[in-house]
Amino acid sequence: MLRRDAAYDRWGEAHAASALGPDAERMLGEELGSGEPLPPVPLEAVRVAAPQPIPAEVVAAAGGEDAISTDDEDRIRHAAGKGYPDLIRMRSGEVSEAPDAVLAPPDADHVVAALAACAAAGVAVVPFGGGTSVVGGVEPLRGRFGRLVSLDLTALREAIVDPVSMVARLGPGLRGPEAEAALNSAGFTLGHFPQSYRYATIGGYAATRSAGQASSGYGRFDAITTSLELTGPEGRLRTLETPHTAAGPSLRELILGSEGILGVITDVGVRIRPVPERRRYEGWFAPSFAEGIAIARSLAQEDALPDVVRLSDREETRVSLAMSGLAGIRRRGFDSYLRLRGRSDGCMLIAGWEGEREAVERRRQLSRRLLRRGGAVPLGGSPGHAWEHGRYEGPHLRDLLIDRGILVETLETSHLYGRLDELYAAVSRALRTAMAAGGAGAIVMCHLSHVYRDGASLYFTFLTRARAGGEIEQWRAIKAAACEAIVASGGTITHHHAVGRDHAPYMRSEVGELGLDALIAVKERLDPAGIMNPGKLIAA
Amino acid sequence: MLRRDAAYDRWGEAHAASALGPDAERMLGEELGSGEPLPPVPLEAVRVAAPQPIPAEVVAAAGGEDAISTDDEDRIRHAAGKGYPDLIRMRSGEVSEAPDAVLAPPDADHVVAALAACAAAGVAVVPFGGGTSVVGGVEPLRGRFGRLVSLDLTALREAIVDPVSMVARLGPGLRGPEAEAALNSAGFTLGHFPQSYRYATIGGYAATRSAGQASSGYGRFDAITTSLELTGPEGRLRTLETPHTAAGPSLRELILGSEGILGVITDVGVRIRPVPERRRYEGWFAPSFAEGIAIARSLAQEDALPDVVRLSDREETRVSLAMSGLAGIRRRGFDSYLRLRGRSDGCMLIAGWEGEREAVERRRQLSRRLLRRGGAVPLGGSPGHAWEHGRYEGPHLRDLLIDRGILVETLETSHLYGRLDELYAAVSRALRTAMAAGGAGAIVMCHLSHVYRDGASLYFTFLTRARAGGEIEQWRAIKAAACEAIVASGGTITHHHAVGRDHAPYMRSEVGELGLDALIAVKERLDPAGIMNPGKLIAA
Repeated sequence: MLRRDAAYDRWGEAHAASALGPDAERMLGEELGSGEPLPPVPLEAVRVAAPQPIPAEVVAAAGGEDAISTDDEDRIRHAAGKGYPDLIRMRSGEVSEAPDAVLAPPDADHVVAALAACAAAGVAVVPFGGGTSVVGGVEPLRGRFGRLVSLDLTALREAIVDPVSMVARLGPGLRGPEAEAALNSAGFTLGHFPQSYRYATIGGYAATRSAGQASSGYGRFDAITTSLELTGPEGRLRTLETPHTAAGPSLRELILGSEGILGVITDVGVRIRPVPERRRYEGWFAPSFAEGIAIARSLAQEDALPDVVRLSDREETRVSLAMSGLAGIRRRGFDSYLRLRGRSDGCMLIAGWEGEREAVERRRQLSRRLLRRGGAVPLGGSPGHAWEHGRYEGPHLRDLLIDRGILVETLETSHLYGRLDELYAAVSRALRTAMAAGGAGAIVMCHLSHVYRDGASLYFTFLTRARAGGEIEQWRAIKAAACEAIVASGGTITHHHAVGRDHAPYMRSEVGELGLDALIAVKERLDPAGIMNPGKLIAA
Repeated sequence: MLRRDAAYDRWGEAHAASALGPDAERMLGEELGSGEPLPPVPLEAVRVAAPQPIPAEVVAAAGGEDAISTDDEDRIRHAAGKGYPDLIRMRSGEVSEAPDAVLAPPDADHVVAALAACAAAGVAVVPFGGGTSVVGGVEPLRGRFGRLVSLDLTALREAIVDPVSMVARLGPGLRGPEAEAALNSAGFTLGHFPQSYRYATIGGYAATRSAGQASSGYGRFDAITTSLELTGPEGRLRTLETPHTAAGPSLRELILGSEGILGVITDVGVRIRPVPERRRYEGWFAPSFAEGIAIARSLAQEDALPDVVRLSDREETRVSLAMSGLAGIRRRGFDSYLRLRGRSDGCMLIAGWEGEREAVERRRQLSRRLLRRGGAVPLGGSPGHAWEHGRYEGPHLRDLLIDRGILVETLETSHLYGRLDELYAAVSRALRTAMAAGGAGAIVMCHLSHVYRDGASLYFTFLTRARAGGEIEQWRAIKAAACEAIVASGGTITHHHAVGRDHAPYMRSEVGELGLDALIAVKERLDPAGIMNPGKLIAA
């Protein structure tokens, strides 16, 4: 019943991990020194605490014995997301916090009943879709409750397509590729391709305000969501399926990003698009990060935005090129090419267009004009193909680095163009300073993506040698330094990874005391027993 | 201090009203019969109840004697919006419900203080921007309070432009043309042009989720709003100015459409665009309303949407052409032109493009291809110019009709393309049936506008002979019939006029019991005394 097709302690399927090349190994050794390897532990060797018994009325409400698992493997698989601290915990061989059971109700009616029964019995509930949260969104935090279940939405995988209105209703348990397959068979696509695409689910996309790699073109998940059903302990809340309404505050936007604290998302209405006739990705080289940002800004503000825009800073460009294969261009040929163009250094920019053949060409020409005007030089299709080929590989690479005793993490924020420089400098500096405290070398790199008319997101990746046995404390100090720098610069604490447990302490800075009060008021009304996802999003 | 530049009992400035032409007079006489004229009453002859005294601490908190008016003229001017029932009440010569005073705090700090003082003293507060609500949004309903003030935002008219990020921060009291003037002087436009543009304010746009005539291109007001400050009795709630965030439910979207029940909007961040180099509007003739809708759908779904799209049904087309001057094309020449094209009948479609000269031409060619493919025939620029010339004139025409004893009202809804036919038929039928009950002739006409990829809005205008002395009851019965038809068809109760008092009874159908509960919970937290705009939006 429950999925077991991915590794419990790594990203996705075990076989998906490829090896690091010799160039990458050498660079990591030179710059970070050698870490103490942290090998995975086989699932059967992992110890997990014995479960508390789940009340019979909860089991009955969820759909009976077919709808519950207390199997250790299922409990371990629902004990964590895929953040760096999660992966470290999973490699300890001991899972001290796991749900007492996994419930998988067969339909939304059973979800209502199960949640009401949990509220009555005082059982905490953590909704679980793909389990890909990198911010602690599915941690089994019990709050004041003695028992906790993971509510797995795997069974809710319906897909209904309305080709005339170009909308679909999707079940929350559909993974990215499952939703795409259902839509593709009717000639449509969702166009939503986050790095977690292969495992994350529709319900998770909505609950976390997911943004995909092509969201500049197709729109972020919140922007393509037309209607939602939220199922909580007090019943169901459904928004209308109309294209727009002016009937008061938007409840759809209250459910989007609610991360399971108000209830479970049981139905998602989305706008869909025809499967693109053509996809065209290509690489460009901008003279500097600042000039690249100016180009991205002009693309957005002059209505010439590609569907994918990703601009790496100098450091990310350098590291990507060193990680052979990642940049998809032979280093030597690439260097001579740039010399010919009078460039020795710069920032890689990936641009992609999707749609009808004619429209792709027309839009591409508009974009290219502005890319050239901004001083970028074209690298042709091969960096684009390489990016496309590796677009979901980042998390697998992370596993390989963790194997080698390297601390590796990512975080993202966003700001107005007028404030991006300041934010970029502040976060980079905070990360470097915090990692330097460990005494080892460090790499901090960044890319700009999710380009808007008024600003863009900055996505940081940082690496240093892990402090064996103290990885989580080390991570916590670095993460806190970065978060404080973001808050001080007026950026948002998260552009698309959501809040979960990791960012909850910063919500007061993000929305203010009164904003937090408003969210708590809604929470208390929709979940009066407080069983829904304790310790997430609005934790004190 | 307070504005007095518009008629108290009509739309906008008195001199703006032009006369009906002889064709229009004849058509109205033939189809509706002659109504009993309802003349306006001079302001100085209007009776208004004596005001309750406002506590001294409220006056002091608002900014002292300069920040309050208890003058009868100001009280009458703040006693109603511009809906049909408002205009009828204003013509009775007796204003039984008026605010006891008008407060106009000089800045946002005084707004906080004034609201806290009102909460402490038990004084109800109705926020007042342009006073153009057509759904009873500014009615002085006292709820359980003995005293009521209108809080006029006229003094908050700051405008700060960030040309790099292409955003601006605008004060809530700026009227449409004032905001445009401030932005235009820096080379930018908001692109927000609702029919109420000349009088409605920035705060009102945000509080009611306004949509403009060019919102297909520039985006509805909620879509161009980047940040908001809500000032309530408990303090201020500010959202970040970042282009996007995934930090939980959207509080910006909770403030948008809050219609004064949670607090007063005191600052609005918006995306702005360069002033368009070129504006091009033109007329087309679609074979039928259904075929015109199919064209609009293809324009949206095939990425060829003009910035303005407005498709009249047969009846609106006929009436517009009869109202000489409104269609801007001579009836006789027009008929022969259509005969030449093999058309005797059809539906007028206005399409408009704005932006850089080259982009306008490119986008116009894309649109024209689909218009022709859908069977529409071009009418050239003159219907477009006529529409542009008369785009803000509708409410003035309404005044002329009311003078003649005609009941005239508009309402709007929206739905998915797959459900528009059903919604159109149901609302048309409900309006005709309800008006037929009065025994007089009736006109029901509709246009499609605000075209999205998944659906569009329907905007109905209906006329019949008013029942002298019983206009409001007559209106109420017709309005209720239409609202019930909308609810039964799954449409939204309002696409852009908002909820106010008139649609409040339908909010339970719109968002469900639990949705209403969530809004009430927020209201209770942000306005525990319940002083903010009683009887609006979520009234029982």
